[in-house]
Amino acid sequence: MPDSFPPDSVGLAVPEVHHFTEPLELSCGRRLASYELVVETYGELNAARSNAVLICHALSGNHHAAGFHSVDDAKPGWWDDYIGPGKPIDTRYFYVVCLNNLGGCHGSTGPRAINPETGMRWGKHFPPLRVRDWVLSQARLADRLGIEQWAAVIGGSLGGMNAMRWALEYPARVRHCVVIASALKLTAQNIAFNEIARRAIRSDPDFRDGDFAEHGVVPRNGLALARMVGHVTYLSHALMGQRFGRELRSGSFARGLEVPVEFKVESYLHYQGDKFAESFDANTYLLITKMLDYFDLAREYGDDPAAAFRTARARFLVVSFTSDWRFAPQRSEEIVQALVAANRDVAYACIDSDMGHDAFLLPNARYEKLLRTYMNRVAETC
Amino acid sequence: MPDSFPPDSVGLAVPEVHHFTEPLELSCGRRLASYELVVETYGELNAARSNAVLICHALSGNHHAAGFHSVDDAKPGWWDDYIGPGKPIDTRYFYVVCLNNLGGCHGSTGPRAINPETGMRWGKHFPPLRVRDWVLSQARLADRLGIEQWAAVIGGSLGGMNAMRWALEYPARVRHCVVIASALKLTAQNIAFNEIARRAIRSDPDFRDGDFAEHGVVPRNGLALARMVGHVTYLSHALMGQRFGRELRSGSFARGLEVPVEFKVESYLHYQGDKFAESFDANTYLLITKMLDYFDLAREYGDDPAAAFRTARARFLVVSFTSDWRFAPQRSEEIVQALVAANRDVAYACIDSDMGHDAFLLPNARYEKLLRTYMNRVAETC
Repeated sequence: MPDSFPPDSVGLAVPEVHHFTEPLELSCGRRLASYELVVETYGELNAARSNAVLICHALSGNHHAAGFHSVDDAKPGWWDDYIGPGKPIDTRYFYVVCLNNLGGCHGSTGPRAINPETGMRWGKHFPPLRVRDWVLSQARLADRLGIEQWAAVIGGSLGGMNAMRWALEYPARVRHCVVIASALKLTAQNIAFNEIARRAIRSDPDFRDGDFAEHGVVPRNGLALARMVGHVTYLSHALMGQRFGRELRSGSFARGLEVPVEFKVESYLHYQGDKFAESFDANTYLLITKMLDYFDLAREYGDDPAAAFRTARARFLVVSFTSDWRFAPQRSEEIVQALVAANRDVAYACIDSDMGHDAFLLPNARYEKLLRTYMNRVAETC
Repeated sequence: MPDSFPPDSVGLAVPEVHHFTEPLELSCGRRLASYELVVETYGELNAARSNAVLICHALSGNHHAAGFHSVDDAKPGWWDDYIGPGKPIDTRYFYVVCLNNLGGCHGSTGPRAINPETGMRWGKHFPPLRVRDWVLSQARLADRLGIEQWAAVIGGSLGGMNAMRWALEYPARVRHCVVIASALKLTAQNIAFNEIARRAIRSDPDFRDGDFAEHGVVPRNGLALARMVGHVTYLSHALMGQRFGRELRSGSFARGLEVPVEFKVESYLHYQGDKFAESFDANTYLLITKMLDYFDLAREYGDDPAAAFRTARARFLVVSFTSDWRFAPQRSEEIVQALVAANRDVAYACIDSDMGHDAFLLPNARYEKLLRTYMNRVAETC
């Protein structure tokens, strides 16, 4: 069967469920008595256990970063362009770990899961999380997998916040920290877009105050709207212009309100929104966008990011993209400045791209070369 | 009573309703047998009838551009900073006309009005409009007011599109055309934001497929969401950061989903959205955003804006604002380039501002000086 996968693919990816029975103390003061994490791994852990790489997903990501779930799979994992034999994160050298984070909706314990203490679905009663809770749960997973120190913790967007928090919480356990299209904290504009998305979800009558699953419904429209807002802001202005321009679906103006969707960009957005609403959980969306809003790397360090980074021991690679206006290069440069002020080892590149925030997920020759070069250096330390 | 108004105010503004009984042939092929326009005027038409200025409003604007409706009015008209005795559009010299456009919801014939042919509210059955239909109805109003030629037609955003269309449709009737924070046509990103706003309205259960008025309800939530999307995109990133930053309403993180609104920027946005939903009509919102999407100055001129502008005889002033990303300076520069290619008389200024698209409505010393200087030149030709 694996013969039918591309030669530079990790091939068949098999998600594994890890049960954890030691209670997890959360930053909100509540605890999870037990929980499950769905994990995929690619490559082999070496004898020295020194070649493990943690991939941290963003808002809508999950454990399936690379490879295929079957030979019939139309699409590989979400970061397949960058993970595989011969790819920048080369699975011939690295043991790559990716999990669906706590609170997610792709199999790990979250609002969709059953709370074993009540026998009921968690739903809106799932405890609010902070990025540090993810780090703690990932550290437990590392223990389970026999990984004392990550060769690298890598993430884009919210995943980059996750990676930075790792470097502060467990300085001895992170050798390299790769922070892509991320920020020390969200701006007011970002919070505003997140809150519009949340209102769209909360005001969908099928949200049922978060109890939609109990009512056998899904707030599809709210989720779709949330995704549409996100999607427009993840794409660059230039990319949308190139991809859609003002092209009409029918080739001519219908001129009326009867045919509401006429421009190609409109139908594309509706498609993306509706597709997302099929698979994503509304409570997870609220939960994780709140994690994004709350994240503030330096809050517990006197609002001084340099003071925060002085805790870290990792070497850093920071990457931004020119057309990303949701996590603009300026945000990455704030990270770099704080790292420099903290006298940490940091490399930085702002990659020329028209792809907006989504650039961190997409093929780009210079970005690939950068990651490949950096990861080769990481491999030398394994 | 006028004694209590500021000395540089036009004072008490009295809206007048003009009835038109000559049918209006619309660009969609349908006709309005009769219609009404609500109009405010400030200043006096001179004996030569050469000092009239038309102010064209944008998406959410109306006829009340300046002055107060009563001494108890908390706020003056929407462009009061720029219209009045001694202000850039000086009512000691100019006769200023502003109307609520056709399809609007502030008294002119539109979805909220009764269709005299059926005795029923127009609602969603109001015919779709194009900017040229506004120009035609405004030309009829000019005839009614005895204005053969406007000293200037002035508008920002959609109002700028309206002003440009005037210069093409009635070249002999426009002496100066002032186009502020506008574009030859919307970009895909702009259309995308508009469509998200429309979906928010259409998917509100209280929209009732456009028949909300018949059901005695208002799609408040959809309208509020639409306005919130608009509002975030009209403000600049920098302005939101300055005004709200990441400040919390309560001063501390609630850390939960129970208190959904914690950041000040969130409560501000909800307030703006809910306030808008109190007064604006959902069908008008759909109608006018479609006018914005459809507008394409050069479509009937072989997609060549220079060819379009060769029709015009007016002199042009084009203005943009550095932080406006919804109608970016580049869009204004496209207008200027086409005017130059058409060998028209054009002045252009890109004003330094942190206020985003809303800058065209707000006080700004350089912008005021620019408009004042230009309008003084216009006054010399009256």
